Amino acid sequence: MARLAAEVGRFLDRHHLRGRTGVAAVSGGADSVALLRAFVASGVHVAVAHFNHQLRGPDADRDEAFVRDLAVGLGVPVHVGTADVRGEATRSGGNLEATARGLRYDWLGRIAAEVGAGWVATGHTADDQAETVIHRLVRGTGLQGLRGIAPVRPLTADVSLVRPLLGVTRVEIIGYLNLLDQPHREDASNVDPAFTRNRIRHELLPLLKIFNPEVVSALGRLAGQADEAQQVVDRAAADLLAAAERPRAGHLLVFAADTLTAAPPHLVRAMFRLAWEREGWPGGAMTAAHWERLHGMTRDDASAVDFPGGVTARRVGRVVQLGRRL
Amino acid sequence: MARLAAEVGRFLDRHHLRGRTGVAAVSGGADSVALLRAFVASGVHVAVAHFNHQLRGPDADRDEAFVRDLAVGLGVPVHVGTADVRGEATRSGGNLEATARGLRYDWLGRIAAEVGAGWVATGHTADDQAETVIHRLVRGTGLQGLRGIAPVRPLTADVSLVRPLLGVTRVEIIGYLNLLDQPHREDASNVDPAFTRNRIRHELLPLLKIFNPEVVSALGRLAGQADEAQQVVDRAAADLLAAAERPRAGHLLVFAADTLTAAPPHLVRAMFRLAWEREGWPGGAMTAAHWERLHGMTRDDASAVDFPGGVTARRVGRVVQLGRRL
Repeated sequence: MARLAAEVGRFLDRHHLRGRTGVAAVSGGADSVALLRAFVASGVHVAVAHFNHQLRGPDADRDEAFVRDLAVGLGVPVHVGTADVRGEATRSGGNLEATARGLRYDWLGRIAAEVGAGWVATGHTADDQAETVIHRLVRGTGLQGLRGIAPVRPLTADVSLVRPLLGVTRVEIIGYLNLLDQPHREDASNVDPAFTRNRIRHELLPLLKIFNPEVVSALGRLAGQADEAQQVVDRAAADLLAAAERPRAGHLLVFAADTLTAAPPHLVRAMFRLAWEREGWPGGAMTAAHWERLHGMTRDDASAVDFPGGVTARRVGRVVQLGRRL
Repeated sequence: MARLAAEVGRFLDRHHLRGRTGVAAVSGGADSVALLRAFVASGVHVAVAHFNHQLRGPDADRDEAFVRDLAVGLGVPVHVGTADVRGEATRSGGNLEATARGLRYDWLGRIAAEVGAGWVATGHTADDQAETVIHRLVRGTGLQGLRGIAPVRPLTADVSLVRPLLGVTRVEIIGYLNLLDQPHREDASNVDPAFTRNRIRHELLPLLKIFNPEVVSALGRLAGQADEAQQVVDRAAADLLAAAERPRAGHLLVFAADTLTAAPPHLVRAMFRLAWEREGWPGGAMTAAHWERLHGMTRDDASAVDFPGGVTARRVGRVVQLGRRL
C-alpha cells in the first residue's frame, strides 16, 4: 500500500511539481483523503482546500468539520470556501453539477494564488478515469473524448490542475486508508446525481470487469494513448496550417490547394478545425459531414458552399478561400 | 432501404474499386446476401465465392446449396471451396475459428486471382464493427485495436479485402432483405462459438444502447478516427526515424539523442516500434513499461540495458545505440 504514496511521488517528479507548494482539494471522501495522506507521507508541501457547496445541509457542515480536523491533525494549513451554488445555478440557468464544479475550480484557483501554490491536486482515480472514458465512448465524443481526465492541465495562467491518483484504483485507495486506520466521509463531494454516471459505475463497469478484471487500467492506458495520439495529430495539423496557408486576401483565408490535396484527409480536416478555432468561428454546428464536405472542396473547382456559422468556402484555381459573413 | 445499395456504390467509388471485377464472399447469412443483392442492384461486376467449412454437417451443405441457387438466380458466377478445417486445426494446434478464417481468406485470395478480380468484399456491418471495437476496448489492446475492422486492406499483393457494409447496421440489412422479399440462412457462417463475442452481442451492446441508442454508429466513427489518428502517428514516426537515424556502426543502429529528446515521448516510442519492425526484432514481449524505459534512456548517459528479444540499448555521448545479440 506504500505503492500509493510512491505513485504520488513519482507523479510529482515526472511533472516537475515537487519544487513548488501545492493545494490539495479535499472533500473528505476516500479519494481526496488518501491523496492528502500520500502527500504528507511523501513530504510534499501542500495546503488543504475544502469547498463547502452547502447543498446537503448538516452533512456538508460535518464534511467541512471532518476536513478541518484532519488537516489540523496532520499539521497542514486548511482553507475553507463556500458559495451560493443553488442561487448561482438558478441565476445562470446552468445545471447544479456544472455550476458547483465551476465555482469550486474558480475558488481553488484563487486559493492557489493566495498561498503562492503552483498547482492544485484533486483525488480523481483510475476508476473515475475509466467511468469518464466509458461515458464519452457511449456518448460518441470520438477520439478527443477518449483522452478522458487530463493528468495535468492549466487551471489559471500560473496554476496547474493535477490528478496524481489517475493511476490508482479505488480498491487501492480503500486499502491504503485501512492500512493507515484513516477514516473518511462517504461520497462527501458527490453532488452529481447523474443517472448515467451511476449506471455506468454500478451496472456497466461491473459487467465489463467480467470480461476483463483489469478493464479499469486498460481504459486508463487507452486514455493516455488517445491523448498522446491527439497531441501528435494537433502538432501535424499546425504544421500543415503553416505550410498550406497563404497571405489573407482581405478578410478571406487563403490556402494552397495542392498542399491540401497532398495531405491525408484526416489531417486536412484537423487543420480546418484549427483554423476555425484560431479565427474564433463557431464550430459547434459543424458536423463530421460538414468537415468532410469542406475537405472535398479542396479537390475540385466548385461554386461557393455555405457552412454553419456563416462561413463560406470555395476553391478558385489553385487556392481554397474561406471567409465568414459578418 | 435503397440507401443500402447507394451506400455500397459510394463505398466503391470512394475507394476507386468500380473499375475492376470483384468477388463477394457470401456465406448465405443476412449480411452477405444483402451485400450481394446491393452489388447486383448497383450494376457492380462480381463473382460469388462461398466457402464450405464442413463444420456443421448437413446444415453447411444446405448453406452451400442456398448460395448456389441465389447466385444462379441473379445470373452471377459462383465458386465454392472447401477445406478440412478440423483436421488442419488439429495438425497446427490452432483454434478452430482462427484456422477456418485463415483457410477461408487464403481460398478467397486464390479465387480472386483465378477470376482476375481486384478486390474481395465481405459483409461485415456496423454492428460487427461495434462488437469488435468493444471487444478490443475491453481486452485493452489500446488505440491500435480501436481501429477495428479495416474498410480496405491488402488481402494479397494484387487483391484488396473490402467491407462496403461497415457503415450499415444489421437493422438496415434486415429491412433491405424484407423489402426485396429475399430469404437468407440463419447465422450460416458463424463458426465462432466464442463466449465473449456472444456476451458482447447479447448483453453488453444492448446495455450500451440504453445509454445511447446510436452507440453502434458512435463506435464506428470512433474506429475511423482511431484509424486516421494512427495513420498520422505512423507517418510522424517514420519522419522522426528518418530525421534521427545516423549511419549504422557495424550491426548497431545509431540515433541522434538530441533529435529524440526534442520529440514528444509518444512519437519516440512509436519510432522505436517502427525500427523494431523494420529490423524484424521480436516486439511481442515488449510491454508499455519497456518502451517507456527505452525512451527514458534517450535522455541520460547510462549503462547498457537489455530488452526482450536480445536487444540491448545504451546512450553514449550524443547518440543512442541499439543492437541485437545474435
